[in-house]
Amino acid sequence: MTCAVQPILWTRKQLRLLDQRELPHEVRWLDCRSAADVASAIHEMAVRGAPAIGIAAAYGLVLALRADADAFDRAFAVLAASRPTAVNLRWALERMRGVWLASRDVDALEAEAVRIHDEDLAQNLKIGDHGAALLDSGARVITHCNTGALATGGHGTALGVIRSAWALNRLAMVYHTETRPWLQGARLTAWELQQEGIPSKLIADGAAAYLMASETIDWVIVGADRIAANGDTANKIGTYALAVAARRHGVKFMVAAPSGTFDLRCSSGREIPIEQRPATELTEFRGRAVAPAGVDAFNPVFDVTPAELIDAIVCEHGVVEKPDATRIARVLGRPVSPGRD
Amino acid sequence: MTCAVQPILWTRKQLRLLDQRELPHEVRWLDCRSAADVASAIHEMAVRGAPAIGIAAAYGLVLALRADADAFDRAFAVLAASRPTAVNLRWALERMRGVWLASRDVDALEAEAVRIHDEDLAQNLKIGDHGAALLDSGARVITHCNTGALATGGHGTALGVIRSAWALNRLAMVYHTETRPWLQGARLTAWELQQEGIPSKLIADGAAAYLMASETIDWVIVGADRIAANGDTANKIGTYALAVAARRHGVKFMVAAPSGTFDLRCSSGREIPIEQRPATELTEFRGRAVAPAGVDAFNPVFDVTPAELIDAIVCEHGVVEKPDATRIARVLGRPVSPGRD
Repeated sequence: MTCAVQPILWTRKQLRLLDQRELPHEVRWLDCRSAADVASAIHEMAVRGAPAIGIAAAYGLVLALRADADAFDRAFAVLAASRPTAVNLRWALERMRGVWLASRDVDALEAEAVRIHDEDLAQNLKIGDHGAALLDSGARVITHCNTGALATGGHGTALGVIRSAWALNRLAMVYHTETRPWLQGARLTAWELQQEGIPSKLIADGAAAYLMASETIDWVIVGADRIAANGDTANKIGTYALAVAARRHGVKFMVAAPSGTFDLRCSSGREIPIEQRPATELTEFRGRAVAPAGVDAFNPVFDVTPAELIDAIVCEHGVVEKPDATRIARVLGRPVSPGRD
Repeated sequence: MTCAVQPILWTRKQLRLLDQRELPHEVRWLDCRSAADVASAIHEMAVRGAPAIGIAAAYGLVLALRADADAFDRAFAVLAASRPTAVNLRWALERMRGVWLASRDVDALEAEAVRIHDEDLAQNLKIGDHGAALLDSGARVITHCNTGALATGGHGTALGVIRSAWALNRLAMVYHTETRPWLQGARLTAWELQQEGIPSKLIADGAAAYLMASETIDWVIVGADRIAANGDTANKIGTYALAVAARRHGVKFMVAAPSGTFDLRCSSGREIPIEQRPATELTEFRGRAVAPAGVDAFNPVFDVTPAELIDAIVCEHGVVEKPDATRIARVLGRPVSPGRD
């Protein structure tokens, strides 16, 4: 069960990123030669998806340290600031810092970045197994945004569960939202599902609740950018609306994410910073105005789904059903730590 | 309290429609000289909004009868088939049929079409008064799609309530969804609110639930394409999702529509036909592909909000709070008629 899509390529001198702003119509590679290049690619969303930006940032540190052995703190700061919501970014950088402080060795740093990358794929295959086991045969699911190979080190998180369920012959239909404003669903998830030959239909974000009212849907399956200690989950804007509608219709709601997505320093979703992006993401389409000039917008690109609306959080260690701080800590094998650690 | 926007202009020889596909960037007028021209303009959404298409269809009959005194039934059928969900279309055509059967007089038919047009504006001003009276000072509201002067004979329905509330100094902020797939909110509502100088912000459809969770919102105010005898309301896709989120957050939910929007032949929303439009509305943007070629889509452009999620339906006759068949019949002054009449 492998996936041909590989959006992050590493050589010792540069990081090549498949530019996701132009997919699926143009396959363009972006070459990054410095931490600033990588930070810019993350900020501008040439690379996106919480696990993928963590991996890219780790390689960004290697590029910085190969150029200048004193660059660690500066490169760390630039990369950490590139996007605020996904905790995987910070998690990968902190892991790299541990190796650097212990070794002061760029080769060791590079080996750690490669390990982060490889582990992500391995974790996603496990997440796929755990998540697919929750689905009954003939499952009809809704997914949101893109959480596939393009968003990760391979296979995907929520889309990884879908890939694994398809391989097990348990999947009847995937509805995927277009995911405004950035259209990750229409552009990227559509493309990945098509490559796999999985039966799927694109829907407007606002159509999901009506779909649940008019047809049988078994699960909503989404990824995560950050999960608080109590299970509250930050994910792409529109996730919360899906969770509210799912609860009304008795549709189960699954979050699929590697354990690096948990941020136990956040006791609840209230502490997760939500990124606001420019109004132009709503008022323009590929540089062409949609709304009249001067229109103001409120453009949060993530929202928080409270744990009470989540039936299962699936990570590489297993499944947390009806997530709360105790059950999450048990699956993570770490002590509950609601304060800063 | 008047509105400069006037999208439907009638002369005795033609109907001029402000082409809403190109707004707000291009002001292009479409000249219709036959019922087929008008039906095509409705189907292609050059004119849209339930009240506006009723008015346009009435004028379409006049064009047909001026050309051929035997054309009534054929023209009626072509116009009635142009869009399936909005009952105002059928309502206006039936009203015209009554006048035609009684008079066989094209001048009388034309006078009736003008009356339907004029009455719509007068009704909307009353709807505005009734609806605005429900809002407290400093109200913060969400609206969906475009229900303004562009969608009606003038002033608007839901946007008419917002205009009236603004005139009464009761409005603090209007959040309006972009309204995928056709972007009526981003393109048309943004433009009307801007013309009025009403404080407003554009949001992605999927951001409304998060907005309710993170800020105080008092009302969701929407229009309607058809209201069943029990109060179930068909409106632009995404309305139902807003209603579900509003109920969770204690946000009140108002439907504003003229009495011609009620279809007492439908006992509940289950009987309302829901228009499905082409996948290309989701897979393309202004003729440019967004999704990969060959992607399938589910593109219902209306949904049904059950009466239990609606706090008030406002028509020109007054307010129906907690709508059900009895309360609706009382405000309409008509007997309850759940079967076909």
